[in-house]
This record gives sequence, structure tokens and C-alpha cells, in this order.
Amino acid sequence: MPIPAAAAEALAALLGPRFSTSAADRDLHGQSESYHRAPPPDAVAWPETTDEVAQVAAICHAHRVPLIGWGTGTSLEAQAMATQGGLVLDMLRMDRVLEIRAEDMQVSVQPGCTREALNTELRATGLFFPVDPGANASLGGMAATRASGTTAVRYGTMRENVLALQVVLADGRVIRTGTRAAKSSAGYDLTSLFVGSEGTLGIITELTLRLHGQPEEVAAAVCGFPTLEQAVECVTATIQSGIPMARIEFIDADVVRAFNTFAGTRMHEGPHLMVEFHGAPASVKGDAEAFGALAGEFGGTGFDWATTPEARAALWKMRHNAYRSCLALRPGATAVVTDVCVPMSHLPAAVAAAAEDIRAEGLLGPMVGHVGDGNFHAQILVMPGDAAELAAAKRVATRMAERAIAVGGTITGEHGVGIGKRPLMRAQHGDAVSVMAAIKQALDPESILNPGKLVPEVN
Amino acid sequence: MPIPAAAAEALAALLGPRFSTSAADRDLHGQSESYHRAPPPDAVAWPETTDEVAQVAAICHAHRVPLIGWGTGTSLEAQAMATQGGLVLDMLRMDRVLEIRAEDMQVSVQPGCTREALNTELRATGLFFPVDPGANASLGGMAATRASGTTAVRYGTMRENVLALQVVLADGRVIRTGTRAAKSSAGYDLTSLFVGSEGTLGIITELTLRLHGQPEEVAAAVCGFPTLEQAVECVTATIQSGIPMARIEFIDADVVRAFNTFAGTRMHEGPHLMVEFHGAPASVKGDAEAFGALAGEFGGTGFDWATTPEARAALWKMRHNAYRSCLALRPGATAVVTDVCVPMSHLPAAVAAAAEDIRAEGLLGPMVGHVGDGNFHAQILVMPGDAAELAAAKRVATRMAERAIAVGGTITGEHGVGIGKRPLMRAQHGDAVSVMAAIKQALDPESILNPGKLVPEVN
Repeated sequence: MPIPAAAAEALAALLGPRFSTSAADRDLHGQSESYHRAPPPDAVAWPETTDEVAQVAAICHAHRVPLIGWGTGTSLEAQAMATQGGLVLDMLRMDRVLEIRAEDMQVSVQPGCTREALNTELRATGLFFPVDPGANASLGGMAATRASGTTAVRYGTMRENVLALQVVLADGRVIRTGTRAAKSSAGYDLTSLFVGSEGTLGIITELTLRLHGQPEEVAAAVCGFPTLEQAVECVTATIQSGIPMARIEFIDADVVRAFNTFAGTRMHEGPHLMVEFHGAPASVKGDAEAFGALAGEFGGTGFDWATTPEARAALWKMRHNAYRSCLALRPGATAVVTDVCVPMSHLPAAVAAAAEDIRAEGLLGPMVGHVGDGNFHAQILVMPGDAAELAAAKRVATRMAERAIAVGGTITGEHGVGIGKRPLMRAQHGDAVSVMAAIKQALDPESILNPGKLVPEVN
Repeated sequence: MPIPAAAAEALAALLGPRFSTSAADRDLHGQSESYHRAPPPDAVAWPETTDEVAQVAAICHAHRVPLIGWGTGTSLEAQAMATQGGLVLDMLRMDRVLEIRAEDMQVSVQPGCTREALNTELRATGLFFPVDPGANASLGGMAATRASGTTAVRYGTMRENVLALQVVLADGRVIRTGTRAAKSSAGYDLTSLFVGSEGTLGIITELTLRLHGQPEEVAAAVCGFPTLEQAVECVTATIQSGIPMARIEFIDADVVRAFNTFAGTRMHEGPHLMVEFHGAPASVKGDAEAFGALAGEFGGTGFDWATTPEARAALWKMRHNAYRSCLALRPGATAVVTDVCVPMSHLPAAVAAAAEDIRAEGLLGPMVGHVGDGNFHAQILVMPGDAAELAAAKRVATRMAERAIAVGGTITGEHGVGIGKRPLMRAQHGDAVSVMAAIKQALDPESILNPGKLVPEVN
């Protein structure tokens, strides 16, 4: 459904050249990093203020135009794709760090600010924002997806690190959720409701984030294991022992092969853990030794310590580029990315079953994981146009999700629902899905906000 | 409005003697620990299973009977009082610890289980549940109120420590929110929505809680300060310095006087901090020394270390009994208890302004605070029946709340809204109140769940 002329005129009058229906702009905002494909949106807008977002929403609401938020376009379940047409709202011009309140360990930012840009601004304060999904995503997008990543095991996810939001509702009203207080019992937790709602309940126009002290000492290392099972069992034992890991990442032999081929490493082609410790020098030393001893019990060998900040940066850059390196293992391929998260005690069995399933289907699916919180991914490589292969990859993904549900886990630990996980929502949540639908209908009765995403059985 | 005969018959048929309309049972469930007064409920029920709760809800829904959850009756804003009549659901017979999953650091409990009963069951596991509001409250009630208390500065509030819930909805449907995974991005965060909803959206019938490792070493101490301002500034400096306090509690001279009079202490009658450190022996030693040095800078003297577990238990028991000790300062009095929480940098000014305001109104209002997260309370003592005094106390409470809002804080850090904070909700939340109302109406269209509480402008 193209945008009604009256709506397009109102949007053009409001935004001038920052409203576009050109094919180039639309195509740029119709891309996806994963296997999902959809036609481009009907138009793109680049608001610069909350008030403009509110006016855009009011126009879209009046004319029933779907409104889809867009950050850096790095979501993996098509959250930012205009699957029902409509207007994509590119938030990247609202990218300012509004106020750093160092004494309260808080910052207010606009949604288009990326996590790396924020941390660059914070460098001199002794504080940092820890949530790190790998991609240099926008903070608004990270909140909308309830993103997490490598450091969540220590610092929590966006759920724990967003203190308050400013949100534009479906009809253009602007609200603030939460306060600057560290905690509150003053009514429904609307901040938590909007975090993870993937733009289906409102458009985030400002975020108040918790900051953390930059650790006095940081140590990072890579360590190899004879088998996948031993590596993952080492993770479970580490977490259960209470060693306060800042990062504990699993990579399998295929990922190591990708690193060796495309990132210039010369690692043994077997499963590895990548770990990091934060804290006072004495405790970092103690934690690293305790981990080393545990790793040894599970056959861990060949510790390679990144001793300089540059070496650590290179290490985590390599990890963050794993997605692209693994894509390069099969030129031309795209990926079906799984994202289950299970209770720690079920992690070894879940990873082993996934590996076996991928092998049995004859697929190539390198696995990585933020395994310290039970979350791991298979990046199943499929060739565009190969329907049989895509179907096989989706079968594996569905079985991984079903096994996760069976042990009390979740179908998505951090990537969100979008359209990819939507068919599995009822299997995970049962009748709670109808509560989600009731909330969606209460807050967006015309269903203009990212329609067709997240909540199943609602248009 | 009495309960319709058909509803009473259905409830009696379902529950037998566990449904009562006797004056004694009703009176017992019409009490409040604070100044709020309301007639007793029309009836009381003691369900023993989730299915019974579901059937009770269905009956109440069909007959539009208000349904109010009841735990230990220790809420401070009349959350459990039947202000519009109806049925009080006493959850204390659903008090079992259902499953301890030590390897996942989780436990499943029924809502009537108290935090002390849970920790007694956990003693042998090396794990504990940290949230500690003072009262030995039921865990269901703590979740419903989004309670926190003395340890929130280190371990978080109920928001951070409830992983999932089973909830009976207004019409008797039963849902599960959340999973056993450490994190999830699978849709709206219903767990966070029900935590803190004070029984207005559903009745909690099961909780999955996060557990923490019992600290290897614990150290606790009391330390006096020359002035209130210096004590509170020491707190702000401590938190900003990053010392990982397990507890940091402020008590003013009036509270010390209550302790000296009723708890047998012989402390100097001035402001004090009560602190606790958790961790490995070396880090506890280092943290305690770092705090000691900081306290010295702010005039802290007379450190009294509780070196044995018994001494520590006595110390925190005294703190937990502060409410009753302070009530005893004025025999026959009841209390208007304030509960603001402000950003750390505003804490010293907020505490000083409250003290001055109480003094100016000629009131006695001992102050305590979980000041490590910016939360403090004045327990303003009023004589029942003295309308002028009650009005003065409410004026002070309202001004404290308004000052908190003005600096980005909250009207309630942990006690919740109930009926006491309801008139201030719009001042804090603005139009976000209408989002709360929309959610309330979507999930409880007949408004049978704890009607008249929390959400203003909704019956």
C-alpha cells in the first residue's frame, strides 16, 4: 500500500528534503543483514527532533501508514524491514549525547547515537557503557531489541542498563518512562515494557542509560579445548563457581577456521573460549588464575593472553567480525542465525545437540556463543535461492528453539522476534501471547507501529 | 458492596472452610501497618493451588467482586486493603519452596513463602536470596510491590531478581511470564510488567527467582558522623568511588535514640551509617579499609565492627526493627512513611531538606535510608485522630515527593503506590499514566483486581 498523497504531502511539508520516496533511499532502507527479504519501504524520513517524530506519528496514525524505526540496520530478524510497506523512520540524525551525569553514573542520549560513539565521548570520564552486541548498533535499536552481547554475563543486558526512555506513542503523544532514580516502585514498569518491544508500541526518542566504572585492570585470553563438550562444560563450571567473568565467549572449530582464513590468526582449528576479566589488579589476577585452573580440568590448553589494550581490541574486533568472517567461508551465502538461550545446566547438551543436528542436515553452521549466560548462535550458511537448503536451515533453527523451550529456555536470547521468531512465540509463551496482543492493541489500536512484527496473531 | 450470594455460594463450594465471612477473619485482613484505614473485606479465602486461585478469579470476574491479594500484611500504602470491599485472597497457604535448581542458581517458590523461610531452606546450598525489605514479607507480596531494601545497592531489587512468574489473570486464565534462561528477547517483558503491579493486573501464583552465592566473607560495622549532611555526603562519595557496598544504611539521631531506648544499644545520639561488605576475604578487607578512609574524610568516627555472625544478625535485626522502635518513641502513634529515591548527587540536599521540613512542621519523623541507591524514608509519627497532625505529615510527605520529582527522582523507591502515592502519580509520570491506565483496562476490563490502587483515574 503506497503512502496516501495527503500523508506524503504532510510529511514533505514537515520535513522537506528529509522525507524521501526515491528508489535509492528506499532501497537503502530495505536491506537486511540476514536471510530475510522484503520489498523496500514506500518512503523514508530522517527526523531531527522528538517533536518531529511526534508529528510524523500523528500523520501516520491519521492516515494508517505503517511506521518502522530504523537505526543502523543490523537487526537479524527483519525488525526494521517494512514488510507491510509504509514509512521507515531513520533515527541516525538524532545521534547526540545529550548529558553525561558522571556523578550519578548516567547519560542521556538520542536513539541514533551508537554504542561506540557514546563510549568515545565517555572516555575521559572514567565511565563506560558496557552493553556490546558486536555490531556498532544504535542505542535506540539496542533498546528496542533488548540487545545484549559479550559483556551481559557481567553487566547485564539493555533491560538492566536502560533506566528511562522518552517514547513517542502511536498517535504522536510523547511520554517519559522511568526516572533518574536508581530504582522505583511507582507503578507499572513501562521502561521494561518498551525495552524489547521492537518498535511495536512506540518510537524511542531518548534514552537514560546506566554507566559503569571503567575497570582498573583488564585481562583477556584465548584458550583451546579438545572438544566442544569440554569447552562448554568448562563454561558451566566457571559460572557455577562464581568467578565474575566479564566475558566468556565460545567459538567452534568452523569459526576458528574463518578467523585463520580471514582474520590472519593461526589458531588450532578446534573449539576455543575467549575470556576477559575486569576489576582491581589483585582480583583480576586471582580470577584469571582460578579460571586457568578450571580450564585445565576440562582439557584447556594454549592460553594466549592479550596483554596490551591494542591486543585486546584486536581480539574483540576479530570476535565481533565473526559474523562476516563466517559468511566469507562460503562466498555469496547469507545466514539463518539461531539465538537460543538455556539455563546453564542445560548448555552443554543444547550445544552438542545443535552441532549434531547441523551435521546431520549436511549444513555448514559455525557456532559462537555468549555462553556465560547460556546464549549461543549457529550461523547457518545458505545460498540465496536454494529453497531446499533454506528449509533445512530453518528446520534446524526450529528444532534448536523447540529444544530450548523444552528445558525452560528461550527462542531468542538477544536478537529479538521480528518476523523470524514470530511463529515460535506461542510455543514459548502459551496464552501469555494473548496478553502481549492485548497490550499491543491497547497502545496501538490502528496497528501502525511496525505492524506484523513480534506479536503473533496480530496484524 | 457485599459479595453476591451466588458468588459466595460458588466460593464456599470450591473452598469449604477456606472461604470465610466471619468478622474475626475479615478484621484480621483489614489491618494496616501504617496510617491507612479502611473497612475490612467482605470475605477472605485461603487458596492452596493455582487452580483454586484461577477458579476464584473466574467466580469474582463473573460477579464483579473485587479481588485483593494478601501476603504478610506488611505493605505500607494500603496495597492489601479492600478499600472497595470484596474478597481478600490470603496466599500464605501457598508457601512451598517448589524446586531449588542450585546449578542454575534459581529457585521456584509459591507466593506465600517468606524470604526468611526461603533462606532457611537454602542454607545448605551455598546460595541465598538477597532481597531484604526488613519485614519477613512473602515473596509474592515483595514481587507485587517491587520491593527492595538494605541489599539492593549490591544485588538489585525484585525487578532484577524475579526471572519469571506464573500469574492468574482477571478472568481466571493462567499464564507464565518469562523462562528459566538468564535473559530473553522473546517479546514484551511481562515479568517486569507484573512485578510492581500490586495485584492490579493479575495474582502471582508462582515465582522463579535468581539466587546468589553466599559471600565467602562478611563484615559489618556501625560508624557515627557529626552531622546528617556529612553522613549522607559520605554515602554519595562511597558509591561514586565504586566500593561495592553490600549494604549502606543511614539512620538519624532519632532512630539512634529509639535503638538506645528500645533495643538496648548505647550509641552516640547522632547520625550513623550501618555498612556491610561481602566477598572474598581479601576484597572485603580492602573494601572495608577504603570505606574507613572515606568515612574519616567526612568526620566518621567510632567504628564498631560486628565480627561474629551473631553480632551481625543482631545488628540487622535492630535495623529491621527500626520501624517498630521508632513507633515506640511515641506510644500510641502510627506513621506516615515517606519513600522518595533520588539520583545520588541529589541525596544530601534531599535528606537535608526533608529534615528541615519535618522540623519546621513541628513533627517527629525519624529518618532511615537505603541510601546507597538514593532511597530514604521519614517515618512521621502521628497520633490517630489528630487530623491537623496527619495533615501536616502528609504535607511534608507531598513536598518530599515533589522535591524528588523536581530532581528526576521517584515518589516511591520501594514501598509502592497503593492508595497513598496514587495522587502523586500524574505529577511524576505525566501522560505515561494514561498508558498505565490503558494497560490496566486491557488486562482487567471489569476492574476486579485490587481496584482503586496504583493507577490514578481508573476505578
